[in-house]
Amino acid sequence: MKKPLINTVVIIGVGLIGGSFALALKKAAAVERVIGIDLDSENLNIALKLGIIDEAASSFADGLSQANVVFIAVPVCSILNLVKETVNYIPSGCIITDAGSVKSELVNACESLMPPGTHFVGGHPIAGTEHSGAAAAFATLYQNRRCILTPTAATDHDTLNLVTALWQATGSSVEYMESVAHDRVFAAVSHLPHMVAFALVHAVNRSAEEEENIMAFSAGGFRDFTRIASSDPVMWRDIAMMNREALLDMLDRYNLEFNNLRDRIANSDADWLEDFFKTSKRLRDGISQR
Amino acid sequence: MKKPLINTVVIIGVGLIGGSFALALKKAAAVERVIGIDLDSENLNIALKLGIIDEAASSFADGLSQANVVFIAVPVCSILNLVKETVNYIPSGCIITDAGSVKSELVNACESLMPPGTHFVGGHPIAGTEHSGAAAAFATLYQNRRCILTPTAATDHDTLNLVTALWQATGSSVEYMESVAHDRVFAAVSHLPHMVAFALVHAVNRSAEEEENIMAFSAGGFRDFTRIASSDPVMWRDIAMMNREALLDMLDRYNLEFNNLRDRIANSDADWLEDFFKTSKRLRDGISQR
Repeated sequence: MKKPLINTVVIIGVGLIGGSFALALKKAAAVERVIGIDLDSENLNIALKLGIIDEAASSFADGLSQANVVFIAVPVCSILNLVKETVNYIPSGCIITDAGSVKSELVNACESLMPPGTHFVGGHPIAGTEHSGAAAAFATLYQNRRCILTPTAATDHDTLNLVTALWQATGSSVEYMESVAHDRVFAAVSHLPHMVAFALVHAVNRSAEEEENIMAFSAGGFRDFTRIASSDPVMWRDIAMMNREALLDMLDRYNLEFNNLRDRIANSDADWLEDFFKTSKRLRDGISQR
Repeated sequence: MKKPLINTVVIIGVGLIGGSFALALKKAAAVERVIGIDLDSENLNIALKLGIIDEAASSFADGLSQANVVFIAVPVCSILNLVKETVNYIPSGCIITDAGSVKSELVNACESLMPPGTHFVGGHPIAGTEHSGAAAAFATLYQNRRCILTPTAATDHDTLNLVTALWQATGSSVEYMESVAHDRVFAAVSHLPHMVAFALVHAVNRSAEEEENIMAFSAGGFRDFTRIASSDPVMWRDIAMMNREALLDMLDRYNLEFNNLRDRIANSDADWLEDFFKTSKRLRDGISQR
């Protein structure tokens, strides 16, 4: 039998992300024991009943004393405070890693909190569904998905290797990225599109107050296009707060393009419009499927 | 055997929309004969070979002399000029209808062009794919989709009934809408989202020039979200030109929402952001599937 990568993983926040990480590691026989910590005791009971965790910790002290790896999977603004609490209880050699969608501020702050002989490495699995909670977790969530780790110059080599091996055990391919670059990339390809979709739903809803047929005809393409506006509000509040600088930069870049397009429409600039739409099509069709 | 609804339909523009209309009517045995007119003689030959049309007209005079119904399925800015030409050749009793995505200007202008004893009624089938040309046409494109007709106070009752019956024969459900309301509804649920997607692709592409990882990570959600930016550029140039007023109104409404959101992010207004995202989710989840 294959030797597990570690003995004990502690999951803080046993929802879709944390629960699926636990299930995937168990399925791969990569861990001996999973301990869960969650503010929501009902959710923790569900996780226990579903076999996502082996033990529900009654306190941080109780849960963390034998942790080899702690995986923090809570909304990104809560991660730093949890790390502050967690470091009081972890044994020497313990690694803390997370699943936050914003990295640069967090990674620097967490690194500086770690007691000697313990380690932090930031992570961001590119996976999820529109559901949340332990009951939504499943063992194959990370299969064939990417997970980004954001090591720094100070990151311990063995730590990075172990966290990489854990994510690989879940079926993910692991990529390393500098945390500031990470935040700029996701401001562009994820955070900006979400903000656009949130605003779009509001704008169309306001118009629907004046024109009753609008809602009746929103069932087709509009419903599909705005699917991402249905994502978890607390998660997105935290992302907008934590990635403010990179996101504002992207919002402003987008605003320039959008308002230029608006003015060209106002001026009936047919040639420019055709060219702009052609370029959009070419650029979008050039994105490879993966 | 069921009697066909009409003898001869002439399709001007035998692409995805026009060709699929012909195939659906043939399949339903709703017409005796389909004649095709197309600027692109190669496309017209394909339509003939594929059995989409029975005859390729060599000229407007030749094609239109026995038309009971003329269906114009070309980019919306070209429709008015085609109607101007078409009315010179159609026999008494003939009906012209179209598939343009913008209606109010067009319907008024076309109606006023019709010689006595001939009729115009505007149409907009809510169907399509990302492909174009006769080779992309198929008989079930309109099945279980909606088709909007925009009759006016002047529309002849029998004309409206016949065009309705033809669309129903394709498998569509037909709804009537006032043409100005139509243009406002589609500015909101279709034209605005397309403009947003076009601008988004440009903004992200510009950022990708500075940050190489952006394109590598655009393969997931971003690619899905911007699918509609891959639509036909000429069609969208024409829609933006023809529906300028209603579209600008929607662009400006959206801009207000977007810039308010931007400013709240800049001010780190967590409560407002959470509330805004919650409302977005509630509104979007409230759109019924159809």
